[in-house]
Amino acid sequence: MDNFNFCSPTEFVFGRGRENECGKFVRKYGGSRVLIHFGGGSAVRSGLIDRVKQSLKDEGIAFCELGGVQPNPRDTLVYRGIELCRKEKADFILAVGGGSVIDSAKAIAAGVLYDGDFWDFYSGKKIGQALPIGVVLTIAAAGSEGSGDSVITKEDGLLKRGTGSDVLRAKFSVLDPELTCTLPAYQTACGATDIMAHVFERYFTNTREVEITDRLCEAVLMTMVKETPRVIDDPYNYDARANIMWAGMVAHNGIVGVGRSQDWNSHAIEHELSALYDCAHGAGLAVIMPAWMEFVYSHDVMRFCQMATRVFGCHMNYEDPDVTAREGIARFRSFLHSIGMPVNLSELGAKEEDIPTLVEKLGLGEGRTWGFVRLSAEDVTEIYKLAAAAEA
Amino acid sequence: MDNFNFCSPTEFVFGRGRENECGKFVRKYGGSRVLIHFGGGSAVRSGLIDRVKQSLKDEGIAFCELGGVQPNPRDTLVYRGIELCRKEKADFILAVGGGSVIDSAKAIAAGVLYDGDFWDFYSGKKIGQALPIGVVLTIAAAGSEGSGDSVITKEDGLLKRGTGSDVLRAKFSVLDPELTCTLPAYQTACGATDIMAHVFERYFTNTREVEITDRLCEAVLMTMVKETPRVIDDPYNYDARANIMWAGMVAHNGIVGVGRSQDWNSHAIEHELSALYDCAHGAGLAVIMPAWMEFVYSHDVMRFCQMATRVFGCHMNYEDPDVTAREGIARFRSFLHSIGMPVNLSELGAKEEDIPTLVEKLGLGEGRTWGFVRLSAEDVTEIYKLAAAAEA
Repeated sequence: MDNFNFCSPTEFVFGRGRENECGKFVRKYGGSRVLIHFGGGSAVRSGLIDRVKQSLKDEGIAFCELGGVQPNPRDTLVYRGIELCRKEKADFILAVGGGSVIDSAKAIAAGVLYDGDFWDFYSGKKIGQALPIGVVLTIAAAGSEGSGDSVITKEDGLLKRGTGSDVLRAKFSVLDPELTCTLPAYQTACGATDIMAHVFERYFTNTREVEITDRLCEAVLMTMVKETPRVIDDPYNYDARANIMWAGMVAHNGIVGVGRSQDWNSHAIEHELSALYDCAHGAGLAVIMPAWMEFVYSHDVMRFCQMATRVFGCHMNYEDPDVTAREGIARFRSFLHSIGMPVNLSELGAKEEDIPTLVEKLGLGEGRTWGFVRLSAEDVTEIYKLAAAAEA
Repeated sequence: MDNFNFCSPTEFVFGRGRENECGKFVRKYGGSRVLIHFGGGSAVRSGLIDRVKQSLKDEGIAFCELGGVQPNPRDTLVYRGIELCRKEKADFILAVGGGSVIDSAKAIAAGVLYDGDFWDFYSGKKIGQALPIGVVLTIAAAGSEGSGDSVITKEDGLLKRGTGSDVLRAKFSVLDPELTCTLPAYQTACGATDIMAHVFERYFTNTREVEITDRLCEAVLMTMVKETPRVIDDPYNYDARANIMWAGMVAHNGIVGVGRSQDWNSHAIEHELSALYDCAHGAGLAVIMPAWMEFVYSHDVMRFCQMATRVFGCHMNYEDPDVTAREGIARFRSFLHSIGMPVNLSELGAKEEDIPTLVEKLGLGEGRTWGFVRLSAEDVTEIYKLAAAAEA
């Protein structure tokens, strides 16, 4: 096991109706003037934003608001948020929404306390400090409620880039599974795919003998395999929604990745897709991740056999382990298809002829990525082609 | 799933040689005058205490010290620690040792800032504040490095009582698996038993449909079943020690218990044994927990079948699930025996004729415990009798 530091200090406030306590938690963590940051109309229409405001009012906490966060959140709104926070002297940001809203709130939180352009932090500069953040989560997917990560898209050129810092971790995150019951099946499935992808990016490692982390990864994956079809069939199943919501946090606060190397190439390859086509991140991952697995599995066949047998219940073929490894990948793709996810580029609305553009934007040049298998531009091209050719 | 709050803010500093950084972390978390609290001679003889002191000196941090913590830590030493902290104006407590040392440090930390008798906190009073604590862990067992819990034994009458509060959670915990490599096989096995017991106390619940927590529990248990025999056979196996050390934290920081009712009756029943005979807590649990399982399994046979099949790899007997449930319990006892744990009261050094005294000390009267099955004094007597009669 590699040396590591792990700190997940966020207070998770889980369960029915807990969003009505967010004013209390803003106060606990020192907020007195809050920017409420949110997305489109559903959080307003459902009355959630009103309940959040009421909870702040009950604590005598002042607030301003900035809605309009889109999926694949844009730098342009981050600049507006930074300006608004400075004008209103906000000392706390409350993100009410999913990963895009939270990531946008994190960018604003870091930008407010920085003299330069916040985009510096998405171009490699280390974040020194940030305003405190709270979260009321409405989608189980990104895991941003428990992580220090943030991904923003630069409107000019559609560059999608990420950053990470422990100072971006939320002080508290309210997770009320009931808020996710009205989510359409497609978004639910996209979220589930993202959760599983966050685990797989950590599961495929070159560090040996970290059984505890393997088993924790598999715990989340098996939960998703069991619970996701239940919420697709029965959207108001509270317990299934609750299992998925908590699994989404566990998948990405870092605990399933400690002590070893990670991958993250599928995320990087997908980010170019969702930046160019503005497709859902989870749907993009559903197409890319099995294709990536097909391309890399021969690097460590036994690891894929472990996934196939432990997570998807395949029987081990001891005479020909390749068969088991490939069966595991096929089961994963077929699981994603069964919950309504696309299986190839065309179902995603992407075009095979754009592959050179996608690869170009990744900016590898003659270099290679880091990860489980270090990929060249030619390798990535091959993965996009496998993603184009895939069938259910 | 039940509503819950979960917050595990401790920074875990994991890996080889990390104890040399403890001065840096004391400074990070605001300590300037430290009480170093430790147990017997091995931490001194191995040079660990010297390295800790050097690390504090390197940061210019003043310190005093109090050794002599025994297994089943005593209130008498806690009183001395409180007095010393006040005299030396300590603002930080650094526990260097296992669960007993950490629990004693927690009691001191709460007592220093309290005008009354610290024992009040072990008699039901809520803890309001405590000095900050850091940990350098030397035994994978109690999980106290990641929990807010503490158990202290009152010397007068050998009363063993616990308390818990988020203010008792360590600011940082250094976990260096190498420090555990010199631990004798018996202590290693006691620690492994305690870790598994911490999971089982949470696994046996009456709350339905919390798959993610079930799976996380099973992840820790399967890791222990795999890794414990490896360190018994090969004490210097770093990776196996590392897996167990991290599993011990995961088992008890709360993450494997959220969202549902828990049990903890085996711990309560064992505490009377280790209070009366001063035996190792883990060894006591090895005798009590399988006996408790035998007594309660008919309350939820399918839950025991789940344990038997998922954790111990038993085949499900669909015609007679009782057989599978009992096989799981037998496998657990036989696993404990295989790592050198006692299987019955006599192997533990306890006497069957003391059972009435043990039951009496538990203080149930005409009442019942809380938990998976609510136990009367008669039930507890029966469990002690099963523990007396058990065979490998």
